[in-house]
Amino acid sequence: MTLRLHDYVASGNCYKVRLLLAQLGLEYERVPVDIFGGDTLTDEYARLNPLRQTPVLERDDGEPLSESNAILMYLAEGTDFLPEQRGQRAEAYSWLFFEQTEVIQGIAGLRFRLITERIRPDGREAQWRKTVGESALKVLNDRLERSDYLAGSSYSVADISLFAYTHVAHEAGFDLADHPNVQAWIARVEGTQDFMNNLEPYPPNSYAGQSRSIYD
Amino acid sequence: MTLRLHDYVASGNCYKVRLLLAQLGLEYERVPVDIFGGDTLTDEYARLNPLRQTPVLERDDGEPLSESNAILMYLAEGTDFLPEQRGQRAEAYSWLFFEQTEVIQGIAGLRFRLITERIRPDGREAQWRKTVGESALKVLNDRLERSDYLAGSSYSVADISLFAYTHVAHEAGFDLADHPNVQAWIARVEGTQDFMNNLEPYPPNSYAGQSRSIYD
Repeated sequence: MTLRLHDYVASGNCYKVRLLLAQLGLEYERVPVDIFGGDTLTDEYARLNPLRQTPVLERDDGEPLSESNAILMYLAEGTDFLPEQRGQRAEAYSWLFFEQTEVIQGIAGLRFRLITERIRPDGREAQWRKTVGESALKVLNDRLERSDYLAGSSYSVADISLFAYTHVAHEAGFDLADHPNVQAWIARVEGTQDFMNNLEPYPPNSYAGQSRSIYD
Repeated sequence: MTLRLHDYVASGNCYKVRLLLAQLGLEYERVPVDIFGGDTLTDEYARLNPLRQTPVLERDDGEPLSESNAILMYLAEGTDFLPEQRGQRAEAYSWLFFEQTEVIQGIAGLRFRLITERIRPDGREAQWRKTVGESALKVLNDRLERSDYLAGSSYSVADISLFAYTHVAHEAGFDLADHPNVQAWIARVEGTQDFMNNLEPYPPNSYAGQSRSIYD
């Protein structure tokens, strides 16, 4: 199976796929995409993903695969990164959808827009996103009161997906000291076998007024 | 396996689960939840789902399961409603995430807010949602140029999930005549074995000013 990942260095959605690939020990070709430099605005990129988002995984056996959590599921099937027990596997699915709605809107979306100066911290959109993010962190913290990891009791794609943006929540103004179980879980994830973190900061061309992207 | 579905009659997210249960021929207990009458605001409901959303599926083998598409995945595993071939199954996963972001924001979210008079059709939020929804319909239409169903070539949970809000997109002001492949696919889904539609209209207590819910 040849794997080719269309990938952006500062995207948490891309980083979560890189992390799983590393922990699975899978080789892949990494194709850098400068999402703020216009790389996703081409006709060629639209053929890979009409939504013009990263990551996209190209494989031998089908369509180019988009949606970061769908890529995680695809790679994790039949491995230790997806719970074997049906009910626990269902919990993993549930967390992956929670991540794409609550965490992306509340934490990732807030962090991106604040850092790159697209919204003001005291504005209405920032306040709405902050509320969503705080609620998401509370749900995670309550869940982690009952077990070390999110789906069942073992490390899985649910943890990888949720880790991607939660571990940088402080950069969006969240105080993880208010959510000690989340803090402890972040350290636990960082201690898993073959863990690595190569999420990069947003570069200058990502800032409002500098960028040519779907976010402008 | 005893199944209990906490369910709202006018929710497309709930209807998609009812549709799959019907097509699987599974018995279940239906627990009606009046989401606009305050039923999800209780402590008891928060124990079922801290996000206070419907649907929630209670099962013998684990935690109460939330997130409509996670419930679809749980029920569809090992059945004809999830493609057997790995690459096609991955496509189904990808569509389920697309549904929760693009379709919920662009079509379902717009329809709900317009019908229940939470936003004005000419306002900024409505215009933003309209753009997201049109883009989602275009992606669907382009995909359905190449096959009768969304994931691989057979009817699957991807179709069930996307059908739930797409078939009522006209109620949000979208003209499906602009997306003829989507129109034909809706008719095709309606012709599948044991298809049924019991999605109800939003009732009076869902309207802005009448409702007591997480949407106020």
